[in-house]
Amino acid sequence: MHEPEVDVLITDGCVICLDENNSVFSPGYVAVHDGKIVGVGPGNPPEVFGKNAREIVKSTGCVVLPGLVNAHTHAAMTIFRGIADDLPLMEWLQKHIFPAESKLTEEWVYWGTLLGCAEMIAGGTTCFCDMYLFESAVAKAADESGMRALVGEVLYDFPSPNYGPPEKGILYTENLIKEWQGHGRVRIAVEPHATYTCSPELLRKCRELANRFEAPLVIHLSETLDEVEKCRSDYGCTPVEHLNRLGIFDNHTIAAHCVHLTDEDIRILQEKGVYAVHNPQSNLKLASGVSPLPKLMSSKVKVALGTDGPASNNDLDMFGEMDTCAKLHKAVFRDPTVLPARDVLALATINGAEALGFQRVGRLKEGFFADLIILDFRKPHLTPCYDPVSHLVYAVRSSDVRDVMVNGRWIFRNGEHITLDVEKISHHVKRIASQIKGS
Amino acid sequence: MHEPEVDVLITDGCVICLDENNSVFSPGYVAVHDGKIVGVGPGNPPEVFGKNAREIVKSTGCVVLPGLVNAHTHAAMTIFRGIADDLPLMEWLQKHIFPAESKLTEEWVYWGTLLGCAEMIAGGTTCFCDMYLFESAVAKAADESGMRALVGEVLYDFPSPNYGPPEKGILYTENLIKEWQGHGRVRIAVEPHATYTCSPELLRKCRELANRFEAPLVIHLSETLDEVEKCRSDYGCTPVEHLNRLGIFDNHTIAAHCVHLTDEDIRILQEKGVYAVHNPQSNLKLASGVSPLPKLMSSKVKVALGTDGPASNNDLDMFGEMDTCAKLHKAVFRDPTVLPARDVLALATINGAEALGFQRVGRLKEGFFADLIILDFRKPHLTPCYDPVSHLVYAVRSSDVRDVMVNGRWIFRNGEHITLDVEKISHHVKRIASQIKGS
Repeated sequence: MHEPEVDVLITDGCVICLDENNSVFSPGYVAVHDGKIVGVGPGNPPEVFGKNAREIVKSTGCVVLPGLVNAHTHAAMTIFRGIADDLPLMEWLQKHIFPAESKLTEEWVYWGTLLGCAEMIAGGTTCFCDMYLFESAVAKAADESGMRALVGEVLYDFPSPNYGPPEKGILYTENLIKEWQGHGRVRIAVEPHATYTCSPELLRKCRELANRFEAPLVIHLSETLDEVEKCRSDYGCTPVEHLNRLGIFDNHTIAAHCVHLTDEDIRILQEKGVYAVHNPQSNLKLASGVSPLPKLMSSKVKVALGTDGPASNNDLDMFGEMDTCAKLHKAVFRDPTVLPARDVLALATINGAEALGFQRVGRLKEGFFADLIILDFRKPHLTPCYDPVSHLVYAVRSSDVRDVMVNGRWIFRNGEHITLDVEKISHHVKRIASQIKGS
Repeated sequence: MHEPEVDVLITDGCVICLDENNSVFSPGYVAVHDGKIVGVGPGNPPEVFGKNAREIVKSTGCVVLPGLVNAHTHAAMTIFRGIADDLPLMEWLQKHIFPAESKLTEEWVYWGTLLGCAEMIAGGTTCFCDMYLFESAVAKAADESGMRALVGEVLYDFPSPNYGPPEKGILYTENLIKEWQGHGRVRIAVEPHATYTCSPELLRKCRELANRFEAPLVIHLSETLDEVEKCRSDYGCTPVEHLNRLGIFDNHTIAAHCVHLTDEDIRILQEKGVYAVHNPQSNLKLASGVSPLPKLMSSKVKVALGTDGPASNNDLDMFGEMDTCAKLHKAVFRDPTVLPARDVLALATINGAEALGFQRVGRLKEGFFADLIILDFRKPHLTPCYDPVSHLVYAVRSSDVRDVMVNGRWIFRNGEHITLDVEKISHHVKRIASQIKGS
């Protein structure tokens, strides 16, 4: 008989699988080999796993779960974190963010993204979806960090500090796709910015390119009332209807924000299988509004969760985002039963992985990629523990994350980064910040 | 010339004073002697301080600020943390909280409060206002923890598992007041539960007792729509009008929640100088609603911030509460300029101290009590730092707290508790939890 090989065997923890049965094994075990989960179950692991395991990670008092998926962010914007807050949206953009971004370089984006990755990893996020400028640097940084990522260059009708004139944007994206084809862990999306910054022609070209390479298309959608009003005035319909008419939704689409939606919009998103990414903290902070998330979910729209960029949040903390998501809609809908903890945890794991198109990611299940995190629950603020899922949403902090594994590889262990030199990265970002501020 | 004595001299940190000028000294120093701040200023400390300092705490890369004030909580409810979530309010109370509370003992409250204190201290909270049962145990626990606290026994028209028949409640509180008179750091309030659980007669007796001992009166007020409707049906007016007519507001009153208010209610709260405590996360999670905080503030009502109890939050994290507070109202008021970071930080410090009646607390200022915290900002999620006040509200996590001082005494140092044995406390709370769950 062929004995199973095991690289890492995690034992004695409470294992939250996020599988179809919502299995929770307390205690349970997870066995990992060659980047994948080869065994998961309740109690002690079968003897044969223990005998062959290269590394045994005893996790008494800890919780093991799939890594979190941040389904919408602009990671490099760590370099602008807290540069301006509490301002009207247009003043914030035009007086602070746009002027700072006009001087953006590939090097800034590289270090900014690495810092974002460091923050995300330490906070239990193993996978993210990024939209920004100089995304070749983002892809490189994501790869170096060991995270899983779907990234893409932002495309719009005006010149970019990266690729120059608008027409070069499509080509830049195409080259990026080709460069990263077959990588698996880092993938490229086609990313038009929004309906108010992209002509129908550009949007159609984006769809075409995405179809040609079977890449997901990522776009901001119905984030603000202004955006919806402008679309109605320009095209006589809502942004959702506009994109639907252009055929943008005919294939894999990830739409960030989705705050201001009509019933017809919701019907279209459901019918077309568009993935709607909810960014509650950013939508609150920029005063954009509150997405009708419970309605989207009851209408069977596919939803995931993201932090948005650190300039409008101001962190990349998915545990904080889950907490806000779970609480906010209860008050808005005047119903404490909406968005129960279990559903919110699914948004931040399996739903995110599906939205980004990463198959066999987001659950602890045999045959799935070993993207998992281990949290230390032996803390005053997690004591007592009647229900670990409740704690994950309502009480855990990012700082409770002890270990992070992606693709079967530890990238954070006992609270220390393995892939990233945080001191060096922080040094570079501080240098960049002084250039930004000094100008 | 008489040279100043200095017990502790904090140098090289960024000092956020929360004084009348909103001074920020970066770097700056704080000198502490005999429980009080004897010097605070920019740059290096005067030589005479350094020469005489018994302890010098170099705080490069750190931020020093007043300790946070949690102006409304039920700390002992840590023992019920996460026992039931995502349920309708009445089902939550009647099927889970009330049955569990019916078995409450003084010993449970003692350990539950100590655990709450451990969590609060580690999260930078130096002072709290508590309402619960067996408050003699809460006072004892608060005292042992080294925190500053205003505590009081919850009073209502039905028998209490603590003092028995309702008429004994006033006597219990009076004895508690006498017992702790002159303590300074731990003080007693008179705490009728709410208008829907206390008869006008009981409320009047509470006011009388509070007046007799110059104690603050603490009450839940206009938390839910049901409460307001019941009051209208019972007394033909809002809870605020009802309490005002009874003369409850004629002296120092701290009113928790204040979610559902008429314009006339707001006018009364302002006129009577009632302190309104905002508990955004609990109000969201229990689907109570959203307090019109910006309107309260523009109407010059005195406001502070609290977490409410850990069974309805589910943590005692004032940094999380500030973040939610700052973001939530921007979306509700469709205005990103409301509740700027600086105002939110004031809610959680000086405003809280004033609400609770602790004079010379809540600022870093000469002559004020040395209740202060030091946060380590050398973290990826706090890099870069354009504005430390922005970070304190939008990016800091409780786990960034390095040191906590109350009354000039360290109670948490380099991430370790000094006054509390967390392992022992956790052990006892787990035992209590198994009794609660097993029954």
